[in-house]
Amino acid sequence: MSDTPRLRIEPAGPGDVPEILGLIRDLAVYEKLEHQVVATETGLRDTLFGEKPAAEVLFARVGSRVAGFALFFPNYSTFLGQPGLYLEDLYVRPEFRSQGCGQALLARLAALAVERRCGRLEWAVLDWNEPAIGFYRRLGAEPMSEWTVFRLTGESLRRMAAPRSAAG
Amino acid sequence: MSDTPRLRIEPAGPGDVPEILGLIRDLAVYEKLEHQVVATETGLRDTLFGEKPAAEVLFARVGSRVAGFALFFPNYSTFLGQPGLYLEDLYVRPEFRSQGCGQALLARLAALAVERRCGRLEWAVLDWNEPAIGFYRRLGAEPMSEWTVFRLTGESLRRMAAPRSAAG
Repeated sequence: MSDTPRLRIEPAGPGDVPEILGLIRDLAVYEKLEHQVVATETGLRDTLFGEKPAAEVLFARVGSRVAGFALFFPNYSTFLGQPGLYLEDLYVRPEFRSQGCGQALLARLAALAVERRCGRLEWAVLDWNEPAIGFYRRLGAEPMSEWTVFRLTGESLRRMAAPRSAAG
Repeated sequence: MSDTPRLRIEPAGPGDVPEILGLIRDLAVYEKLEHQVVATETGLRDTLFGEKPAAEVLFARVGSRVAGFALFFPNYSTFLGQPGLYLEDLYVRPEFRSQGCGQALLARLAALAVERRCGRLEWAVLDWNEPAIGFYRRLGAEPMSEWTVFRLTGESLRRMAAPRSAAG
């Protein structure tokens, strides 16, 4: 028997919600976006582990500790006529970096994508995050540099949704 | 009774698959990406109107003609702890432009987002598509300019999925 902690990739469950929220907050701090986090344990429990889960979560576990996580959901490509997987969050805690956790999470996601007949695995990265960009490029991922995501949220979303906006 | 064709936004059904594929191809030509379209009617029928639909399609109809379409699916924000809607394709045929079709499709999507308790409506636009960018900005949408989407597909995806990649 060996005492070396082994890396395991496992799905997270409803009991892991506090840990998931902690990881989301850690990632937000790393991305300098912590002011944007308004998620709550109740919200995560309802949307991730309720009747219609909106996303799935994988944990990278080393021994009894959670080293990192990946949160993902299906997307769709009209050009392929085929679903894909979209990785919303990938995060490895600082003390577990450079031990293959990120690569193992991505490898599991790629395997799930192939198993589910998905044509693509996609995710977004902040332009200043050079270490991540280098890592992704070495895996063979390609930047969709000519595309920019637009977001409608808050008051602008509600205004757009108002009946008067629906007129032709 | 008036004979003026009225704009209506309606969900597309399985019988609309040939029309959907035509619109996807038209959009790809507009985006100068037609070489990327490998979708087939069978693939679209299975993935959009089969047991587990991967996306929804709305048509903008003017009289008996389909003027444009929107294809969308749910995504998820960990920062909000809440689902969103992602608009994969928005396209209006040239002869129906500047008549409010695009705005009406977006307004319906915004209304669906609010109705489904989604925190955001998001979509991607090509950086050279200035008319679209101006239109989206006027609606109050904000560009996520500091993010770049990475894509793993084809041989790189399969290589990443291979068991040897899963080692820590």
